[in-house]
Amino acid sequence: MEGGITVKNKKVYFAGKPVAELMKRFDNPLFVFSQQRLIDNYKALVKAFRKHYPKTSVYYSIKTNFEPSVLGTLRSLGSFGEAASGLEVTVAKKAGFKGSELIVDGPAWTDEDIELFIKEGLRTLNVDSLDLMHRVNSIAKKLKKKVRVSFRIYPEMKISLLKSFIENYISKFGVRLSKAIEAYAQAQKLSNVEIVGISAHIGSMITDPGFYEQAIDRFVKLAHELKKKLGINISEINIGGGYGVQSLNYYSIQNIILSKAGVSAYSKAASIAEFGERIAKRFKNNLKKYHLPEIELILEPGRFLVSDAGVLLTKVVSVKDNWVFIDGGINLIPESLFFIRRGFIVDGKAGVKANKKYNVAGPTLNTADVLSAEQLLPETKTGDLMVVLDAGAYSLTRSNQFTILRPNVVFVNTKGQVKLIRKKESPQEILAKFC
Amino acid sequence: MEGGITVKNKKVYFAGKPVAELMKRFDNPLFVFSQQRLIDNYKALVKAFRKHYPKTSVYYSIKTNFEPSVLGTLRSLGSFGEAASGLEVTVAKKAGFKGSELIVDGPAWTDEDIELFIKEGLRTLNVDSLDLMHRVNSIAKKLKKKVRVSFRIYPEMKISLLKSFIENYISKFGVRLSKAIEAYAQAQKLSNVEIVGISAHIGSMITDPGFYEQAIDRFVKLAHELKKKLGINISEINIGGGYGVQSLNYYSIQNIILSKAGVSAYSKAASIAEFGERIAKRFKNNLKKYHLPEIELILEPGRFLVSDAGVLLTKVVSVKDNWVFIDGGINLIPESLFFIRRGFIVDGKAGVKANKKYNVAGPTLNTADVLSAEQLLPETKTGDLMVVLDAGAYSLTRSNQFTILRPNVVFVNTKGQVKLIRKKESPQEILAKFC
Repeated sequence: MEGGITVKNKKVYFAGKPVAELMKRFDNPLFVFSQQRLIDNYKALVKAFRKHYPKTSVYYSIKTNFEPSVLGTLRSLGSFGEAASGLEVTVAKKAGFKGSELIVDGPAWTDEDIELFIKEGLRTLNVDSLDLMHRVNSIAKKLKKKVRVSFRIYPEMKISLLKSFIENYISKFGVRLSKAIEAYAQAQKLSNVEIVGISAHIGSMITDPGFYEQAIDRFVKLAHELKKKLGINISEINIGGGYGVQSLNYYSIQNIILSKAGVSAYSKAASIAEFGERIAKRFKNNLKKYHLPEIELILEPGRFLVSDAGVLLTKVVSVKDNWVFIDGGINLIPESLFFIRRGFIVDGKAGVKANKKYNVAGPTLNTADVLSAEQLLPETKTGDLMVVLDAGAYSLTRSNQFTILRPNVVFVNTKGQVKLIRKKESPQEILAKFC
Repeated sequence: MEGGITVKNKKVYFAGKPVAELMKRFDNPLFVFSQQRLIDNYKALVKAFRKHYPKTSVYYSIKTNFEPSVLGTLRSLGSFGEAASGLEVTVAKKAGFKGSELIVDGPAWTDEDIELFIKEGLRTLNVDSLDLMHRVNSIAKKLKKKVRVSFRIYPEMKISLLKSFIENYISKFGVRLSKAIEAYAQAQKLSNVEIVGISAHIGSMITDPGFYEQAIDRFVKLAHELKKKLGINISEINIGGGYGVQSLNYYSIQNIILSKAGVSAYSKAASIAEFGERIAKRFKNNLKKYHLPEIELILEPGRFLVSDAGVLLTKVVSVKDNWVFIDGGINLIPESLFFIRRGFIVDGKAGVKANKKYNVAGPTLNTADVLSAEQLLPETKTGDLMVVLDAGAYSLTRSNQFTILRPNVVFVNTKGQVKLIRKKESPQEILAKFC
């Protein structure tokens, strides 16, 4: 079974289903997720890494898409989960995860969150700062528990093309590598935490595995120094997610700014096989270099697993000059706001020569509600069904209710069954919020 | 009664209430809205315009903040409402507005929306394109109604400092001025619409009334031409909103990009008295010039009325190097994502010399969750209460539930009573969404 997009006679199918029929049955706009594509992505990822380093674990980034059908599918394949808040721990448990199958990241947990993480017996708390480590310790003490922790480390590498603009932001997570030994030394004095790891997340939509290689050199060296200087035995190194998705291979803000400077920012992501091979080999070689034992390599993939396992089916509601308005926009896929372009296919016109340049806008009364600028498409008309590709990651979980409510969501399982997994919202749900 | 912020002994009060007590009583983070400040803003706006042109009507932009207490307060002062979708019509009716007190804008109404607008007897439908005008006409025909309409007109002025980046986006709303006569001529042939107006919205956070003057010249001239060429009598000209708020007077993205180019983008907004005087006088003079009758001048203020009528009370949850993390971020005030900076006050340290530069980050695991870069603040510690100013506009209505749920909202009325108007969300509400 083909889990993704296929085309027959200019008509579009997703997970084997004609998109026109799905929209007719479940209304528009409509999110559709494909179990088969999820499975294919998960297997490709695991194979790529374990072939070269078997002691690799996958903790799926729950915040990327936490529909229970998605979480349940990944868990059944052997994935664990990475939460970012108490809310996500609750949702993951609902989907079948045990507390011990979860780890948690984040810069700003509340006391209630920390208490929940400890009570649920989460495997490891990846702590963002020394401040937070002290809070974790004191809550653990109150609960009479000893908690497995790591520090999130910011590797102080320059990896962005837009350094001056974004680098300041990227540095916000974690303890700087240059201050890591000092932070671990402080944490070592705390009575109710057990230091087990180093964790990190070096970026998003990274196309070049070389950045991970650089980061791994630094993290394994840090593990070595922690052993030598502080006697700490690191048993897990978590390199986070960020593996670029090949169908989503450029940032429009980069394109716009850099193309004005005469530089093309387009770069295709490496294949997952290449990411896996280069990262796993570099990790193994570093362990050997420092005479370290087989430390567990933890991955936190999000977008890679779910991006192309989801599409948003929309209807064209208005065409005006070079503007096409569809009925789902940045309200449903917020990261399209300036950052990420994705592909579009017009049902019934798939494969027809794309010879018109359109700006594709969403439906909200917001100037920034533009999914793509200067998009080549075939001649498009009001009433056309437009498929927005790569709608599986950071879509529903970051969606809002700005003037338009959230739509139905369906899941196509490997048996070809289509299940409504989330019902569209009604104005009554909004009215019910008011006291 | 002072509706906004006051300070006594370094402690912060909002709408006369000590923020520390509000947070203690209603938990953190917490939105607080002030009825007195809403009233003061509304009265200042109306006075500024009506002094020079009495036939001015106010249609509050509902999407900016549609808590029923906010809508009810504005309605009681004589404001009407501008909706952008069926959802907003429903919410406005709940807050007491009659259908005939509402108008509606938007580029992408659904058929169900249009039907609702017609059935509810909305005063005017401001139609974004000829495509949409045809749909409005055919639905009106089906319902055997004649509907009052205007076209939204894009005045084709250059008003942005970031022209090449944003101008393309701004042009997305409305019919281009150069194509307006043609569009009205087409609409005139339709049987179930009655053309009554010209509508527009020239931008957001406009600091210089001169842009409105330019736009008014074009719109009144268009009214004149519509009369002369097509025999259409325009009875309302709607210039939209966008009047800059003085407490929110620069865009950080402009600052960052333009300051790199050696240009300072800082510009303080004109006072509302100046906006009112210059816009109203220009309007009056133009009517006289073209021998037109007293056409109704419609305003659609949003941010101006509610921006400083709201604050977000947050707690500092972690301090690390130059980063301060608070428990509300772009999940609750999404437009802070690169665009708009606002002010911050640390309770208990108000008036203390701000001598440290911090980046203020929100709580979510999102690199972009930064409310302000290089913000001068007094030395700040975990546990401090930080007041985020100007949190009344485009905050709750655009908020999301990304890893953290929405907090309590309270309203302080003119009697000094504090009322919980929206209860914080629970994980159960998210779980209930899944089928």
